[in-house]
Order: sequence, then C-alpha cells, then structure tokens
Amino acid sequence: MTSAMMNLLGKQAKESAASLRMADTNKKNKALTLAAAHFRSDMADILAANAKDMQAADENNLEAALKDRLALDEGRVEAMAEGLEQIAALPDPVGAISDLVYRPSGIQVGHMRVPLGVIGIIYESRPNVTADAAALCLKSGNACILRGGSEAIHSNRAIAKCLRAAISEAGLDENVVQLIDTTDRAMVGALITASDYVDVIIPRGGPSLIKRIAAEAKVPVIKHLDGICHVYIDAVADREMAVNIALNAKTHRYGVCNAMETLLVHQDAVDCLPEIIKQLLDKGVEVRGCAKTQAVNEQVITATDEDWATEYLAPVLSIRVVDDVQQAITHIETYSSAHTETIVTSDYATGQMFLRCVDSASVMWNASTRFADGFEYGLGAEIGISTDRLHVRGPVGLEGLTTQKWIVLGHGEIRS
Amino acid sequence: MTSAMMNLLGKQAKESAASLRMADTNKKNKALTLAAAHFRSDMADILAANAKDMQAADENNLEAALKDRLALDEGRVEAMAEGLEQIAALPDPVGAISDLVYRPSGIQVGHMRVPLGVIGIIYESRPNVTADAAALCLKSGNACILRGGSEAIHSNRAIAKCLRAAISEAGLDENVVQLIDTTDRAMVGALITASDYVDVIIPRGGPSLIKRIAAEAKVPVIKHLDGICHVYIDAVADREMAVNIALNAKTHRYGVCNAMETLLVHQDAVDCLPEIIKQLLDKGVEVRGCAKTQAVNEQVITATDEDWATEYLAPVLSIRVVDDVQQAITHIETYSSAHTETIVTSDYATGQMFLRCVDSASVMWNASTRFADGFEYGLGAEIGISTDRLHVRGPVGLEGLTTQKWIVLGHGEIRS
Repeated sequence: MTSAMMNLLGKQAKESAASLRMADTNKKNKALTLAAAHFRSDMADILAANAKDMQAADENNLEAALKDRLALDEGRVEAMAEGLEQIAALPDPVGAISDLVYRPSGIQVGHMRVPLGVIGIIYESRPNVTADAAALCLKSGNACILRGGSEAIHSNRAIAKCLRAAISEAGLDENVVQLIDTTDRAMVGALITASDYVDVIIPRGGPSLIKRIAAEAKVPVIKHLDGICHVYIDAVADREMAVNIALNAKTHRYGVCNAMETLLVHQDAVDCLPEIIKQLLDKGVEVRGCAKTQAVNEQVITATDEDWATEYLAPVLSIRVVDDVQQAITHIETYSSAHTETIVTSDYATGQMFLRCVDSASVMWNASTRFADGFEYGLGAEIGISTDRLHVRGPVGLEGLTTQKWIVLGHGEIRS
Repeated sequence: MTSAMMNLLGKQAKESAASLRMADTNKKNKALTLAAAHFRSDMADILAANAKDMQAADENNLEAALKDRLALDEGRVEAMAEGLEQIAALPDPVGAISDLVYRPSGIQVGHMRVPLGVIGIIYESRPNVTADAAALCLKSGNACILRGGSEAIHSNRAIAKCLRAAISEAGLDENVVQLIDTTDRAMVGALITASDYVDVIIPRGGPSLIKRIAAEAKVPVIKHLDGICHVYIDAVADREMAVNIALNAKTHRYGVCNAMETLLVHQDAVDCLPEIIKQLLDKGVEVRGCAKTQAVNEQVITATDEDWATEYLAPVLSIRVVDDVQQAITHIETYSSAHTETIVTSDYATGQMFLRCVDSASVMWNASTRFADGFEYGLGAEIGISTDRLHVRGPVGLEGLTTQKWIVLGHGEIRS
C-alpha cells in the first residue's frame, strides 16, 4: 500500500519535474500569483479546514505552543498570499548561464543553472510551510512532495488544493505540487528512501526529527540542525558597539537559531561586561558564566561544560572570559554548531584572522548574529538554514534549490 | 582494533585539517614541489616497493589489465611528479571572496571559498592515484585519508612516505595526508561511516564498488557512476561535422566514460549513416542498431533494449533512428546515465532546446562528448567526474573539493 502510493507520487513528481524544468518564468509566476488569489478567494474554505484541525488539537490536548503554530486566521492566510507574490517577484534562477569562456580547443565552456528535480519536504505543524515550500520549489523549477504534520492535514489539504488549481490554471502540470494525503507515518520512511524518484529531502522541524531522517534517508538531505552561535568581544573592540551587538544577538528574539547562546570576552575587554550583564538581567535573561564572569556580577550562575554545548533558544546566556582570540576560536571549534559566529573588533589583523579561521556557515565581523537570514542576505526568501557543508551552507534560497550543469558550445570540435 | 585505528586516523586528520585550512598558498605549493622532488630522488625506493607488489600480483595470478594499472616505471613516476608540479601551479581556490555586496541594513554580505575538511578517498590498483588525490586535496586545503587497493600497498606506502616527508619539510602537519596502512577490508566500512571525522568520501573504481560504498556510507559521497553518453544528429546538421563528431566520440578512446555509447539520428539525416557505419566497421567497431539502421548496412546487428542501457566501454556502438529531436530527448531521458550528451545541429532553436532540456552533467552542441574532462574544461586537474546532482556535477577539480561560507562585514549593525 505504502510503496504503491510512493511509486505513484514519485512517478507523477518525476514526470512533472521534466516539464517544469522547461517552463518559462511567466507561467511559474502566473501560477504563484493565481495561488495567492485563490488563498484570498477561498479564505473561508481554508479557515474551515483549519478549524477542523484546531478542534482535533483540542480533543488531543495539543500543547499551546503547537496550537499557536497550527492556527490560521485571515491575517496569516493573507501573509501566505503575500509570500507567494514576493516569490513571484524574485528573479528566476533557472537557465542562467555563467562563466562561459573559450578554451584553447575552440569550444566554449560554461555553467547553466538547473533545478534539482524532485524535492521531498517533511515538516511539522505550521500549515504556511505548505505554501512557502511549494512556492520556492515551483519558482526554482522543482517538483515537490510535501509531507506535513498529521495535526495539520485538513489545513494542508485546503492550501494544496488552491496551489494545484492555480498551477493547472497557469498551464502547468498540477503534480509539480503533491501533498502526501495520509497521516500514515510509514510514508515518511517511504519518501526518504525513494531514491528512484526523489533528488533531495529537506526536513523542517526539531533536531531530533532531522537527525532521525538524516540517519535513515537513502536520498541526500539538506539539514538544519542546532544554532549554537557565538559573539566574541576582542580586546580592542569599540565598547558601545560590543554592548549593542551582544544584547541584540541575545535579546532581539530568543527562540531563533541565529540568536547568540554563548558570549566570549577577551580578558582585556571585561570592562564591558558589567553593562552587558546588567542589561541582560534587566531584561530577565539568566546569565551563566565562568569564574571571571561571576566576579563581575554576583547574580551570574556557574556555567558548566554542558552550557557551552547547549542551544538554549530561551532567555539564558553563558559567558566565558578568554585569554585571547586564539582561545576564543578554539572554544568555537569545540562547541559551536557551525551556524553563525561574530567577532567585535576594530583590529584589522584580528578580524581578518577570525573571518578566515572560523569555519561556520556564517562568519561575521562587527554585526549581530541575528543577520544570518535569507531576507537579510538578499535571497528574497528562504526554505531553511543549512548546517551541512556540501552543496549549500547557511540560508537556503532559490539558488540553493538548484544545481548547475556544464554546457559546451562548439563548432564541430573533436578531441585529437 | 578497526575502530581504534579509525578514531586515531580521524582525529589526526581533523586536527591537521584545522591547521591546513589556514595554511598560506606558498607552503602548500612548496609541499607539492618538494614531493615531486622526492619522487625523483627516491625513484629507486618507489620502484623497489612496486616490484614487491608486482611479484605478489604474479603469485596471485592477477589479470593482465590490473597488472598494467599497478605497474610503475621511471616514466610513470616522473609523470606523477609532473602532475604535482602542475597542481602547484594552479590558482589556490581557498579564501577567495566573491559577490560581496552592501545590503540595505548596511552590512556587506558575500561568500568565502573554504575547504570541505577531511576527504576519504577509496580507490583500486593505480598507485598514481595516491599522489594525484593527495595533491588535489592538499592544494584545496583538505586533509585526506587514502585507502588504496591492497594489491598496491607497498607502492602506496612508498609514495605516501615521499608526500608526508615533503609536507613536513614545507612546515605543514604531515597528517594532512594519511594512508590506511593495512589491507584489512573492515577499514573501508569504518572510513565510510566515520561521520565524526570525515566530511566526504570519493570512491574511484568500477560502478559496483561505488554503488556499494554509496549504499553503506553514513558520510556524503561524491559518486562517479556510468557514462552512457549520446550523440544526436539533427535533421539540419552539417553532414561532415556530424560524421567527424560521431566517429571521434566513439573511436578516439573506447574505455573512457565520456565515449559515445549510443548514436541517435534524425530520420531526415539517415543519409550520413552509410559513411559513419562504414568507417566504424573499418575501425573494427561492432555496430548494433534499430531496423532503420539495419536497412542502411547489412552488417548491423539488431540492437535490443539492453543495448540502449549499456555502457560498452568497448568498440561497440548502438544506433537508433528517431522521428525528431523530441524522441531523441525522450530516449536520452530514458536511457542516459546523465553524464554527457551532444547535439549536432545548425538550427538555432533546436540546439537551444536540447541545451536546456537535456539534464545531464555536460550538455554539448556541435562538439565531441570526449571534451567532458577537467583539463579540457580548464580545471587544470580532476579527481573524477561526478554523476551526482548535488554539490558538484561533471568534472571535479579543486573548486569541487571546496565549499563556501557566508561572510558578513559590518560596522556595528544590529537587527531592529
């Protein structure tokens, strides 16, 4: 049953991907703007479907945070529609040719950007992911197979119905967006091992879900794991800048992957700690620290080794005073999840060294870690932030959902 | 035992990779040119080690083709040395910054090219791979763990000794190149599952070895599978060009992955088939074909479905007459291994369509498939040809052995 369903979905996805690869930009944009129109005109249907999910959530005593993620209202549906229109307005990456050069043999060699093919997206309660992920895949020329949370099945069905209707009206194959329309958990296993049909899996959810999928998948996975991000304040940092960046990186939002979790401070810059700690405590942040940090403020709790390795995603911060930039880099190498790190320094050589030496997806100099984001980087939209090393690192936008092929333009050249 | 050895090798590789990431270009080039000098000065030791492997090969009745691959002489060792010098002369991809732009927030965002980290290379009898692979990894800033064929263990040891001595003399950590110095097969399993230490595995060998490694690996694999390459001669192709390209693609070398295995001919271009088939038969190529091809020359054997799906790597060619370019593309979609395909046409629209529509690592227009090669494309050297879709496609040179991180240069910017 499961494998028959997967084979059907996979076949349809693969066939539709072959046609979508060639679709012109206008048709893809038209599908996206028509889908936005459907979200607005079918608002009542979407909200009625969501009400069913919310009722089931009540009956199953879902926790409040999950229910908040699941809930749709007119504002959230309108935001989904606007998201689609924003993606329609982005440049189409598919077919772009770059680096075309003449070689001594006479041939011209270059790259053409092309879709990945079929993308499987596995996600949890937020129904807006159905719209966002499908739109990013469509614009980048990829067919997608969506597997949302079972608690959102009615909402996801209603959203997918709008998307498929719009795609069809735009003259494209509606199977470029397919929703796995069952809550059978075995379908996740089938999807992540369907290497005949699926080119890449993008899981969106907590680290435990993502780790399990990566371990069991037979298809490449673009992973987003923890964000244990660091700010390092160097000896010669501008003090006001250091205070501002540290506070922004921690307190702008707590539950996000690009928030700072550990602050490292050069021993000659401890003079900025009293102000930082005071402001953190005023904002209700729990501060944990090494002995030297505790000497600054008696409200600082002792940090353990576990603290350095923890992504709090909460109003908690660990602080460590280090001897020099080298010890800061070693600490980052040991404990960082390689998501985002920043140095605050006005010294050119130290900043350059940090920039080259630290091997994280985003390395910053005199800026808040909170900038690690697809919109801030100019991608227009993002499907996630990759903590992988291969293929795509950091915020993943339309380009991250494509690959390149080599193109060769000749005039009858042969090898001699 | 196996896991203790893997942990030691892995730890050493990871530590050395962290230092190599920062190594300046001069030191890496010095290590490569010193290694070339060692190959020349230690020629006698290398040949003596190789003689031991050749003696064992005789005793084990290794087949002649394998023995030819295993054998070293002064010319082959000199070629290895020159290969290292060529890699030393290539530009260093590591640390290159691109696409640095100002964003509305005031930050500058761009990419910096960085090494992948630790690369595991698994290969068969050719001892020169030890030198080539290590040199490409070193230049691209990656530590490598090499696992050569057990039949070449003495040769590989002697070559690795030269490499490590040179690396040390250049002031780098010799552990950036480590050879698995045992013929215990369990070490392959340990290497491809050592996800704590190894960032990517590159297997070099036959499709069955590569498929097995890809199936069992817990680390990303850059794969090189079959090359079932096609030439399509369009209705309006220049006939002389078509004949030249078809013959070059098939007969320039038979045992290579970028040789043509199937020729597709538009029904209005069958007039060029008599000449092509005659010349192929004159060169001793066995020609198999569809009924329409057989009608051209009675020596053409009937091609079966299996022929369309076969990488001959031999003087055998299958030919099919197709109705139009669309049928050619469908044939390619069905049977190609997505390595390299070429169209011969003087029609602009048909050529453009083929270029966009065919989804292979290399797509060519009026050029022989034999150009699909790192040197011909200007990479300077190649570690293999990827038939994967993600990360790197087609010929893999120094850049394919690197990834990118985002860099952000600020002036104290914070998110608001």
